[in-house]
Formats: sequence, structure tokens, C-alpha cells
Amino acid sequence: MTDVPTSHPRYESLRIRDAIVTGVKRGVTSEHGLIAHGRGEAYDYLLGERTHPFAVAAIDAAAHLLSQASHPVISVNGNVVALVAADLVRLSEVLGAPLEVNIFHASKQREQAIRGYLLEHGADEVLMPSTDATLDFIDSNRKFVHPQGIHKADAIFVPLEDGDRCQALRRMGKAVVTVDLNPMSRTSRTASITIVDNVVRALPLLIQGLENLAPYGGAKQGAAFDNIAHLAAAEQEIRSPDS
Amino acid sequence: MTDVPTSHPRYESLRIRDAIVTGVKRGVTSEHGLIAHGRGEAYDYLLGERTHPFAVAAIDAAAHLLSQASHPVISVNGNVVALVAADLVRLSEVLGAPLEVNIFHASKQREQAIRGYLLEHGADEVLMPSTDATLDFIDSNRKFVHPQGIHKADAIFVPLEDGDRCQALRRMGKAVVTVDLNPMSRTSRTASITIVDNVVRALPLLIQGLENLAPYGGAKQGAAFDNIAHLAAAEQEIRSPDS
Repeated sequence: MTDVPTSHPRYESLRIRDAIVTGVKRGVTSEHGLIAHGRGEAYDYLLGERTHPFAVAAIDAAAHLLSQASHPVISVNGNVVALVAADLVRLSEVLGAPLEVNIFHASKQREQAIRGYLLEHGADEVLMPSTDATLDFIDSNRKFVHPQGIHKADAIFVPLEDGDRCQALRRMGKAVVTVDLNPMSRTSRTASITIVDNVVRALPLLIQGLENLAPYGGAKQGAAFDNIAHLAAAEQEIRSPDS
Repeated sequence: MTDVPTSHPRYESLRIRDAIVTGVKRGVTSEHGLIAHGRGEAYDYLLGERTHPFAVAAIDAAAHLLSQASHPVISVNGNVVALVAADLVRLSEVLGAPLEVNIFHASKQREQAIRGYLLEHGADEVLMPSTDATLDFIDSNRKFVHPQGIHKADAIFVPLEDGDRCQALRRMGKAVVTVDLNPMSRTSRTASITIVDNVVRALPLLIQGLENLAPYGGAKQGAAFDNIAHLAAAEQEIRSPDS
């Protein structure tokens, strides 16, 4: 960021972009991840780069769902770790849920780089994919999971998820909370709760939501959440923001 | 691309993506450029990946403007060179305008790689940034230009441009023609003429437009062009494609 002045009107977007490029340099993020990030940038731009009411409602519902799960797990990939490593560690603490690495393009080296990046940002433990446990309904390397993590989980928080894997998790009866800037993606449409927002803005709000629930021991019931209706509101915002 | 058949419904998009990844491997395109490409992919997808009438009209107006300039210059960055190097060289010949390298993230090595890539694709000469001439109204390294190129130019063709620099060029009284898939970007709104289209489709059409004008010696006057109205048509296409 040394050559981009803070006065630049796109500074925040450029700062986030720099974080993902640092992720590539550190071996955390793939080149495919960079192109995917760009697509996300475009959707965020169309959404006005702000957290809309449909996202706030989804975050609130997600806080309730995750706090009431018996065994929640946070599944992370290279993009999300590059963007919000410290927030993921904080979420893991607040929720009492383990972090587990799961990436789309197979690479043992990158899996280790992601783990190292999380440990650097304060994580005590990071679960890794294992050949001891696999997901059903999926063929790729993404089926390998940790027996005490995703395999055992009843609810999974997995921002920036791939559509195939999201479907597999749901078919196994697990609740899935995702963060996705494209309300039309298969992941968005398959998840139990989709937060249509930039993960950089959404994660601090989710942590705050969980902290606010803490005095109730997570027992307070959240309002019913209609994911499809919230996705429709998000798509409407992209297509016709002024209507 | 060896594993993607030409019958693949996303073949063209994947072919273009391959060109930009080759650009990264050749040191021509930056990692930030890869993200920008992803952003372009999303907008092009929303536009139906075709050249709309508002783009055809902008290309026609651009051909007139550039052919009538006293000293037109083509300003290139890593993405555009990775995508359309041969077309840029052809445009330079048809227009009788020099190619000049100007990139957002300072790197002498990448500037040289871009120059080399253009020479490989048939360019005779490529102007480089120089500390002998600078643009007004801009802080970053992008202010360094060639005294006989952008500094002296009255019209600049600069596809995939940054908003700050586009504004600086305009404030210096230079005409700016850009290609940008986002009709809402600062560059789009600031340029004299914005071609809202994929540069891969637009550049051959611009060359063809200039060739058609050649018999008139560039003297034929083009119709008045309202850039803001054309941007509104492009945004309408993204926001409400069915209306």
C-alpha cells in the first residue's frame, strides 16, 4: 500500500485488495482466489459497499443458530484467512468453535500456510483435513475433513464457500451459515443462512452479535429466518438499488 | 486451456482468463490485475458478454475523436497488454499513435516486461515513463510520463484506467477515451468517451472503425456523443436487463 495514498477514494477497497495479495505472497491464497475476489468486489460495488438490512437480519439469525449448535465448526479457506484471520480467531473464541482448514484446489503446502497464518494471528489450534473422515455426496479433495471438526459438526460457519460442498454439507443434515456477495450463487441458495455482505464487514458484526447473546447463554430464541426472501432482497438491491 | 474443449459453454471466458494468467507468469500483469480481471468478469457476465449498441456508438465516436487528434497516444498497463497485445500494436499503426507504458503499482521490472511483450507482438517502439515529465493533479508514481508521449498528447486512448489518473488527464485538458466494463466507475464517468465493453471485443471494432474512416483522412466529423447518456444505458443493462 506504500504507493496508494490514504486520500484515494477507493482506499478501503484497495486496502482489502492488498490483504488478499499479501495472502498470495504468503502462500495462503491461490490465483483462482484472486479472480474470485475480483468478482466479489464487483458485487460489493453494486451493493454500495455497505451492510444492508437483509445482511444485518442474516447476521442476527446466524448468531442465534451458531450459539445454539451443539458442535459448531468454522471452516476456512485461503481467501477468508487472508482477509480476516484475526476476526476468525476471535469468532472461534467467542463461539467456542474450532477452526478447520478446507480448500478448493488441493495443496498440502497451502493448507499448512493457512494453518500457520491463523496460528500467527493468535489461534491455539487449527484442525486439518484428514483421511480418517470424509464427507458424503462429494468427490473432490474437499471431502477430507477432521473427525472431531466438520465431520462431527451440526452447524458450520463457512464464508466464501463452493456450491458443491455447501450442497454436500446440507445433504448430510448439517446447518450451514455462509457469507457470499453474490445472492444468485448456488452456495447462497443452498445454505441455511446466507449473509450477503463483504466478509470484512460481516465478521465483526457477527462476533458482536454473539457477544450480545452471551448473557442469555445463547438460549434466547431468534426470530424465524427466511433465507430465500433475504436473497431476493439482496438481488433486488443489486438490480434496482433505487426502487 | 488444454483441458477445456472449445465446445465448453464458458470457453471464451476461460480463454481470456488464461491470457491474463499467462500475463502474470510473464511478469506483465500484477496480482492486483488478476483481481481487476475478476471484477471485469462479473460485470461482463451481467452484461451478457456481448457488445451492446451503447458500446458500438462509443467505439464510433472514439474512432472519430482519435483520428482527429493532433497527437494521440495509447497508454497501456499490464492487463490490457496481456489481453490484447497484438491489437494494441495494430491500433498504434492504424492510428499513427505511439504506445506508452503506464502502470498503477510501481515496478520497473514489470514496466520492462510489458515493453518486451509489446515488442514481441510486433511493436517498433514503446515509450516508457520518465522523470523528465510529470502530470499535474496526481500524487502517485503514475505521474511520470514520457515528454514526447502522454505529456504532449491532446488525446489519450487508455483502456482499463484508474480513476485518479483519468481525472488528472482530463483536468490537464486532454481528451480521454477509455474501455471499462463498469459504467459507474470514476474512470467511466470522467472520461471523454467510455466504451463499456470487454476490451477483447472492443479493440478489433475500434481498429475496424478507424480503417473505415481512413479514406476520409479522419476529417469526417462524427455525431455528437453524450457519454453520460451512454453510461446510463449501460448501467440500465446491468441493473435491469429484462426491461
